[in-house]
Amino acid sequence: MSNIFNNIPSDIPNEIFEDIINTKKLRIERIVSKGQSSPETGWYDQEENEWVIVLSGFGVIEFSNGNKISLKQGDYLNITAHEKHKVIATSTDEPTVWLAIFY
Amino acid sequence: MSNIFNNIPSDIPNEIFEDIINTKKLRIERIVSKGQSSPETGWYDQEENEWVIVLSGFGVIEFSNGNKISLKQGDYLNITAHEKHKVIATSTDEPTVWLAIFY
Repeated sequence: MSNIFNNIPSDIPNEIFEDIINTKKLRIERIVSKGQSSPETGWYDQEENEWVIVLSGFGVIEFSNGNKISLKQGDYLNITAHEKHKVIATSTDEPTVWLAIFY
Repeated sequence: MSNIFNNIPSDIPNEIFEDIINTKKLRIERIVSKGQSSPETGWYDQEENEWVIVLSGFGVIEFSNGNKISLKQGDYLNITAHEKHKVIATSTDEPTVWLAIFY
């Protein structure tokens, strides 16, 4: 057993991406952000669908159609493959823990 | 966008199982318990692997080898297919929200 809030460093100069499960069928990833936006330039344009939930902190996702969605604790979203998006803001006060399921 | 903690009734006479995503490759399910154990008799003996995380409350899972694992907020566990298990306790004070990924 592990805890999703464990092993979060006090300094987070760069976003942290960690696989929890990685099989052919799906990948479960923990992402920890603190003030970062990503990717640095352009958009995420992914081969896989992504279901993502914010477990602490908050983040704002922008889509290429201009929609901006702010996610706080417990908010979740399904991003279909090739739906271009980026993270334009995350909390600077506390770590934002995202759980992302790629499938 | 939805929130995993929304639409939790104040009375939970039976556990609530709801699909969030259901495709051929995976199923994401929210389970809400309040004091229940499950299944009523016997064990869960599943065809699929299950990755499960507790998002509020707590629950205790027993395995057929006698191991008992207590999960509180943020604790997660991978249960492989056909690993017999059951939930022997959940919080009676507050709803326990489980997020389960079957793959």
